[in-house]
Amino acid sequence: MSAAGTWQAFVTAARAAIERELDRRLPPESERPGRLHAAMRYSVFAGGKRLRPALVLAAGEAFGAGRERLLAPAAAVELIHTYSLVHDDLPALDDDDLRRGRPTLHRRFDEATAILAGDALLTLGLTLLALEPAEAEAGRRARAVALVGEAAGTGGMIGGQEEDLEAERAWPADAARALERIHRGKTGALLVASLRLGAIHAGASVAEETLLTRFGERVGLMFQVADDILDVEGSAGELGKTPGKDAEARKLTWPGLHGLAASHAKLAELAAEARSFAASLPEAGGLFRSLIDFLSSRDH
Amino acid sequence: MSAAGTWQAFVTAARAAIERELDRRLPPESERPGRLHAAMRYSVFAGGKRLRPALVLAAGEAFGAGRERLLAPAAAVELIHTYSLVHDDLPALDDDDLRRGRPTLHRRFDEATAILAGDALLTLGLTLLALEPAEAEAGRRARAVALVGEAAGTGGMIGGQEEDLEAERAWPADAARALERIHRGKTGALLVASLRLGAIHAGASVAEETLLTRFGERVGLMFQVADDILDVEGSAGELGKTPGKDAEARKLTWPGLHGLAASHAKLAELAAEARSFAASLPEAGGLFRSLIDFLSSRDH
Repeated sequence: MSAAGTWQAFVTAARAAIERELDRRLPPESERPGRLHAAMRYSVFAGGKRLRPALVLAAGEAFGAGRERLLAPAAAVELIHTYSLVHDDLPALDDDDLRRGRPTLHRRFDEATAILAGDALLTLGLTLLALEPAEAEAGRRARAVALVGEAAGTGGMIGGQEEDLEAERAWPADAARALERIHRGKTGALLVASLRLGAIHAGASVAEETLLTRFGERVGLMFQVADDILDVEGSAGELGKTPGKDAEARKLTWPGLHGLAASHAKLAELAAEARSFAASLPEAGGLFRSLIDFLSSRDH
Repeated sequence: MSAAGTWQAFVTAARAAIERELDRRLPPESERPGRLHAAMRYSVFAGGKRLRPALVLAAGEAFGAGRERLLAPAAAVELIHTYSLVHDDLPALDDDDLRRGRPTLHRRFDEATAILAGDALLTLGLTLLALEPAEAEAGRRARAVALVGEAAGTGGMIGGQEEDLEAERAWPADAARALERIHRGKTGALLVASLRLGAIHAGASVAEETLLTRFGERVGLMFQVADDILDVEGSAGELGKTPGKDAEARKLTWPGLHGLAASHAKLAELAAEARSFAASLPEAGGLFRSLIDFLSSRDH
């Protein structure tokens, strides 16, 4: 198996359990208000990569937690990730018609439903973290909500999205630093929180959580730099969305600001840093190293 | 002091502490992203009645909790209430230009900022419930998140809003029952949760919480029926918003469905029921009975 293959095999094997858990936690379409529930499900079951829930499982299992304790928190972060995509796609924000090759939620349903479905996914995600796993110490569940809530808030995901929108209107004077903050907020924060969430429910130590945070910060930045590169180099078929959209929208991106060569070099530098942190993490069948290789070579 | 005056005096006296707590918990405008923080503050400090935080304090103190333990949870429900107003006012939903006599957030700032600020208020509210009061048992904080999250979700506030929108397109066959569900969801759920939240942090018993729930359900319905009546009978000056808007939007309302006389009769019936439950609640200086009188006679 290739170096990146270990990670892909892990995600493939975990995928069915993650999908089942999401199905179990989302309200059924047969229940009122059915249209809203249908909208939530449309977005959640749109063929996402399930990277965040896989990170919860990987980190939790590496530190010794059983999968049954990790599935609900894993589903919760995917619900929150999905909400962020639904709202980011709205006409007033990125105004996207396609997401993973299908019409975005507000195109398939309508704008009001997309706003409410996004609100509902965020609410359900944080609520689920407070409730599950029911057998965990309440302190871990409360910490889980705080961890993910802070990662999703103005100091993380929403803050990054706001700065991204502001940069689209006019590139800030400190563009390189703004780009770093945007990446860290928009994608990095929830990826790091996913790893730490697994560690919390595994009862990992503070030192272990810190190590995982350092590792996750590099991995999160790798993910976003790779994403920016793909928007330049990828095709619509590979991406499931319109390529070149970033440049068209004058988005602040790594290739746009530093060029493609520097972006590839940055990716390699981040991979080296992530590897040095991974060396101190549990071996876990080479899973963390494999994740780095996967992100170094991703093409969609 | 009039019967309703006791409640009004309680809210007036509590107001400064609630506003201080909100100010303390909201990120400052001087911090990045400042525009988003300014937007959150614009909506939170728009002169709201602070009914929900007052209910948290009233219930918590009635069951013996000190105010310092209740202020952060009280602020949290107000943040969540404010998010719901910001999103409901959006062009794709109620499309309101005025809220409490001032431009709505998307009119004052822009639509993207209003969507993100709403998301941020919801996220901050639930996160705050998980974190504070820090000295409380973690189990109470986790329960607080679950309680408020469920009240705000598809089975509560968001579900009510969705059914309200659907009813605007076409009144459902079971209009009377749909109206009951909409009121219960849109307003009732978070009002009941506010009372129970106070009880949780006061360590009230399950029986006490159940009693408070029954009381809160009547109070919540009273609040909404009174609101519907005001939209017909009130003036713009009293309301701080455009009256007659419900009828114009063909909204499902109590007066619209049952007439004004039946609406006033319903209000009186709910008040009698609420009084019978209040009789078993702690006396608390007549605060709960006074709240009923206040809701029976509210004119804004």
